[in-house]
Amino acid sequence: MAGARRHFFVCTNRRPEGAPKASCARNGSEDVLFALREEREKRGLSADIFITATGCLGPCPGEGGCTMLVYPEGVWYANVKTEDVDELVERHMIGGEPVERLRDPYYT
Amino acid sequence: MAGARRHFFVCTNRRPEGAPKASCARNGSEDVLFALREEREKRGLSADIFITATGCLGPCPGEGGCTMLVYPEGVWYANVKTEDVDELVERHMIGGEPVERLRDPYYT
Repeated sequence: MAGARRHFFVCTNRRPEGAPKASCARNGSEDVLFALREEREKRGLSADIFITATGCLGPCPGEGGCTMLVYPEGVWYANVKTEDVDELVERHMIGGEPVERLRDPYYT
Repeated sequence: MAGARRHFFVCTNRRPEGAPKASCARNGSEDVLFALREEREKRGLSADIFITATGCLGPCPGEGGCTMLVYPEGVWYANVKTEDVDELVERHMIGGEPVERLRDPYYT
């Protein structure tokens, strides 16, 4: 996979205000996406790390945060918030190790 | 990767009418997405195959078709059209082999 050693997908699905079910964009996923891209640029990782916004990925978030998925590992994250971005960048984007505390307990 | 043996990502980025650059949605990617999902249901593959719409994936399409990406293999497809869906389903979604003639020549 030349040029894409790791690919981060961030769900930016948005349900209307007042919808009974939460959605990633309403839970701040666009801020998570922006922060991930900013860190990638800062650290000079643009050739190796792809970051893509998606429609609904399947698993919906709970009270806070958003759904993320990283390939080629196939690691699902649940309820990711902007305050988790530094750890995701250090540990997973750079270190190659999933952040266990953020993994989706059902999608593994 | 329980529940997701293969994940198809279809770019549904749409540029405005009149924009000088093509975009996947203007090239029919929403129809490709719909056709892929329809075939998945018909063949009873919903537990094993994930299909997700994305924002811009990076490589832009040429005159026709859209950009697609399949993980965990990391296979990039270029200029995919609805008439390619049957072959993609038979060969890659079910058979596990990339459709060589559709592969992106630059993203490999």
